[in-house]
This record gives sequence, structure tokens and C-alpha cells, in this order.
Amino acid sequence: MTNVQVTAEAVEGSAGRRGELVRQAMASAMAALEPPLAEMARFATGQRDAGGEPAAGRGKGLRPTLALLGAEAAGGMAEAALPGAVAVELVHTFTLVHDDIMDGDERRRHRPSLWKAYGTGPAVLVGDALLALALESLGRVPAAVRGEAVALLAGALLEVVVGQAADMAFEDRPWTGAGAVTLDEYHAMAAGKTGALLGCSAALGAVLAGAPRDVADGLARAGRELGLAFQAVDDVLGIWGDPDATGKPVFSDLRRRKKTAPVLVALSGPDRDALVAVMTGAVDERGLRAAAGLIERAGGRTAAEEMARRCLGTATALLRELPLARPAVEDLLALAEGLVARRR
Amino acid sequence: MTNVQVTAEAVEGSAGRRGELVRQAMASAMAALEPPLAEMARFATGQRDAGGEPAAGRGKGLRPTLALLGAEAAGGMAEAALPGAVAVELVHTFTLVHDDIMDGDERRRHRPSLWKAYGTGPAVLVGDALLALALESLGRVPAAVRGEAVALLAGALLEVVVGQAADMAFEDRPWTGAGAVTLDEYHAMAAGKTGALLGCSAALGAVLAGAPRDVADGLARAGRELGLAFQAVDDVLGIWGDPDATGKPVFSDLRRRKKTAPVLVALSGPDRDALVAVMTGAVDERGLRAAAGLIERAGGRTAAEEMARRCLGTATALLRELPLARPAVEDLLALAEGLVARRR
Repeated sequence: MTNVQVTAEAVEGSAGRRGELVRQAMASAMAALEPPLAEMARFATGQRDAGGEPAAGRGKGLRPTLALLGAEAAGGMAEAALPGAVAVELVHTFTLVHDDIMDGDERRRHRPSLWKAYGTGPAVLVGDALLALALESLGRVPAAVRGEAVALLAGALLEVVVGQAADMAFEDRPWTGAGAVTLDEYHAMAAGKTGALLGCSAALGAVLAGAPRDVADGLARAGRELGLAFQAVDDVLGIWGDPDATGKPVFSDLRRRKKTAPVLVALSGPDRDALVAVMTGAVDERGLRAAAGLIERAGGRTAAEEMARRCLGTATALLRELPLARPAVEDLLALAEGLVARRR
Repeated sequence: MTNVQVTAEAVEGSAGRRGELVRQAMASAMAALEPPLAEMARFATGQRDAGGEPAAGRGKGLRPTLALLGAEAAGGMAEAALPGAVAVELVHTFTLVHDDIMDGDERRRHRPSLWKAYGTGPAVLVGDALLALALESLGRVPAAVRGEAVALLAGALLEVVVGQAADMAFEDRPWTGAGAVTLDEYHAMAAGKTGALLGCSAALGAVLAGAPRDVADGLARAGRELGLAFQAVDDVLGIWGDPDATGKPVFSDLRRRKKTAPVLVALSGPDRDALVAVMTGAVDERGLRAAAGLIERAGGRTAAEEMARRCLGTATALLRELPLARPAVEDLLALAEGLVARRR
């Protein structure tokens, strides 16, 4: 993994003009809400901080960028994909808001999570409102492509929810022995929870630009691979990430006793019992640091990094094979590289 | 209000064959989920009790019945509306599951509410899953009507969410003076929270049966009026309903200090200060009984009952004016009468 800073900036750069298009479209989608719902929705999407001040940090805008690039890659205008870009960003934010409630996570993007800032009930409602706005956004696309667009989003949404259910169920499963989570189960969960919406984003952009079915399907597959790569990098950052960059506590996933890929890999190694002892014991920074060390020595970190590279390779090959517009493909590839090299 | 039992049975009766169609379609929609999500979703929709036993009670099935009747009234087959019937019932159940979390309600349909039975996090997720399944269901209708169907559902969903936000905001507003909730604000909230989905149900059925725009619009308006009538009856039952019939505690809405129409009417009467004293004091059965008496004497109950009758009259007039199939209109009218006469 080389030249991390440069590739991370490339992601931001590729989102420049497109990012501005998306920000305007998001703001106008949100205009359908009145306070206090509007203020909370703007907080959740990173447009405003609690109290309504402009926010310092915002999300990466990965999914809407993928949607716009999907349209451009299919030979259309980025603008055609805007209602889809808004829809996938809103659906993504909806999942963050509700997942933070389910997981009890108190921080998100260097700020309190929405439920922590405004309460659980309001956060449930804001998530619902974001999802309603997402649908509303797709309800405005030309009738000729609306049906296909909705079918794409509905399918992805269901996969995301089923993936989140699997992720929650993993928490109650044993660390070892019969009933322990397998690496295959973990990847299936990540394909739903993370891959489905990234695949949907790219395909939705193409569909809104009038792309034929096989092009949209190809972009969906490539986006899904990117999602798996994204999740693998997330798993690495969740253990070894810099809290200043990620906005999450140090050893965040270990603290939450998450059974992520690096942990599962290490659980099949020789230091299994020592790792289980740390992961099921009292949470202190020394123990967490020891666990991170055990996992790294057992090859858990390398395995996740290889997974990210492998999925990136598959996505790249798919994008090169499809009959797509070259400049957009180059931007997609830069975006993909940046995702795998990112630090936050 | 006469012959309550007979009209209540008429509602059930009109749902007989249609109810069976809906139950089968709901069961097959839910087959996309695996345990434990599937079990919780079946609990929420009243198909199963906690633990998976067949449930004793279920909902009234009002919205899916309206969808099927909408199709029939537009001259189509009930079957054409089934994906829409499933979608509106799932959206309705989604709102119940999430509203019970937001409102802290522990009972629903003579059973624990979902969050009470399974926890808040899982209940948030089940609500999301139900909404995803609703979209999935609409994703399967013929492409020619899918776009319009989705636009209808998206619009209704947004109105429902905005209505629920208003309802929650009412809780923090003063009982009297500047900033007090007005009856107009209350009706606007009810039109969103309850009216929108009933209107959508009838219109969606018609759209799926290929009805022209003006017929669908007329059914939407009639359904919305029925929703307002339904809410007015709900408000009466929330204070004076029989707990054995409603499945809710006695004086349930007063216990929750809800600013419903009967209360708002009484707050503009001469016993205002006495009522405010009771509604803001300690909750005991004697105080609640006193409040119910004050509200009734101030005309709050009569006003809500008149509101229900008036909206029923408007809906009836709309249904008689539209170019609809007679037998389905008669069933719609019987359903509407039953709604206003219901005890649960």
C-alpha cells in the first residue's frame, strides 16, 4: 500500500465537480422536510452540526460519486444520475443512523451519532425520513426508467437489511467451535451490508442514463466487488486505524468485540485461545493492544489487505471488459484505488 | 352510532376472501427473510406470536382490503392489486413497529409491542426490513405501472413520516396559550400520519388495475377522508374505548398525555384549567376518569364523532360520484361504515 495520501486526495478530487452537483441535489431533496426533522436530517447527512451550524466533516460521498460515474461510464451525462445519486446517499445515511442505534455507537464522523445527539426515538424517525426522501427522489425520474431504478434500489435495500441482521446475529455466536462464524459467512454478510448498495449505486447511475441491461449488470458486479474491498479496508481501519483520521476510538472494532475478517482469520491460527481470552475479558487499552498484536501476527491484517487488493483487481478487470466510456472508467479506477488506500 | 356489532362484522366479512388472498401474499413476501428476522417480522405482522406460535390476534387488514377494493372498483381483478396490498400492509406494520419505539408503547394488539418483546435494536431493523419488503413487492409489478405505483407509495411514506414528526413535536408544545396545538394543526398531522396511507392504498389498487389518473386520484381523496374518519374514531377509542376490545390500557391516550382532537376541543372550553391540571398532574385512574369526564362534558367526544361522520360523508359522496364498479363501491361503503362504527 503506497502513496496513501495522494490516492486519498484523488478520491476527493474525482468527487470535486460531481460532489458539488450532489450537494446541491441533496440540499434540495431535504427541503421537503421542516424543522426539527430537517435539522436532524442535515446533521445526519453531514450538512449541519447539531444546532444548525455548518458541519466541519462530512461523509466520503462514495455512493453518489459511483452513481454519477456509472452514468458517465454508460455514455450519459452525470446529471441524469443525480436523483439516483441522492437516493443512494440518503439510503446510506439511513443505514448509518439506524445502525448506530442498533450497535449503540456513540460517535460517527468525529461527532456524536444522531441518537446520541437527539435521542433514540427521533433518530429512528430521521432514518425513516431519509429513506422516504430516497424513494421520493426516485419517484421523480422519467417513467421509462423509474421501474427498473426502483427494483434496483429495493433489492439493494433488502440485502443491506438482511446483511445488518446477520452482522447483529454474529455478536451472539460463539468465538470458536460449533456455531462459530465462518469467513464465508462473514463475506456473505459484507456483500449484503456493504457490497449491495455500492453495486446498486453504479448500476443505478447507468440505468438512469439509459444504459442497456448488461452494462448495468456489469457495473453492479464491479461496484459489489468494490464494496467487499471497502469492507476489508474498513476492517483493517477498525483495528489499526488512526482515531484522528477515522473519527472512531482506537481499536474501535475490538472494543466492540466485532467478529471481523482479521479476527476470524486469527481465530483459526495457533494463538486462538489467547485471542479469545482477550476478546471475552475486560476491555482495557492494554488488552486491546495485545489482541491487535495477536491478530496481526496470525496474519489477520495481511489477509484483509489481500482481500481488498483481490476484490479491487476483480472490479478493475470487470470495468476494463465492459463497453464503457474511457474517461469515466479511468475516474472509477482512481476512485477504487483511493478506496483501498484510504486511511479513514 | 347504532348496531356497532353488525357493522364491525361487516368489515371482517368484506375482508373474507380478500383477506385470504392477502394473507397468502404476505406469507410469500415474508419468505425472503430468514430467522431471526423472519420470526420477528411474522410477530410484527400478526402472523405469529413470540416464539413462533400462530397468533391469536391480528390487525384489521384495512389497508390491503382498500387496495383490493380499489382495483375492483376500477373494474379490475383484486389479484392485480395484491403486490400493492402487501406493500401498504407492510408499510403500515413498519410504522407501528417504529412508532411503538418512539412513543415507548409497550402493548400492541393484546401483546407486547415488538421492541418490548425483542429489544429496541432488533425492532428498528425489523421495521426497516418490512419497508424493504414493501418496496421489493412493488418492484415486482408490471413495468408499465411500476413507476406510478412507486411514486404513490413514496409520497404517502413521506407524508406519514412528516405526520409522525408533527405528532411527536406536539408532545413538547404547551397545553394552552401561545404555541399550543390548534385543531387545524392536529387535522393536518392526522391527514399525513393516517390519511395518506389509506388514500394511497385505494389509489394504488386502482393504478395496478390500470385505472386512469382521475379515478386513482378520486380514490386517493376518498381514502384520505376515510383516514381522517378512522383517526377521529381512534381518538374516541383512545379515551373511552373498552380495553378488552382495543387491547390498550383504559384511558390509554390520556395516560400518554396525547393532545388528540377531543382534548384540544375541550381545551378551548370553560373547564380548560381543570383539564390542564389533571393532564399535567400525577397519572392515576381517578384523575384520568375525571379528565375523560371533563372532555366529554366540554363536547370533545361529540366533536370527534361528528368529525368521523362528516369525513365518512365526504368519502361516500366521492365514491358515488366516480365512474366505479358498483359491487366494489358497495363493499367500500360497508367497510367505511364499519370503520366509523368499530369498537377496536
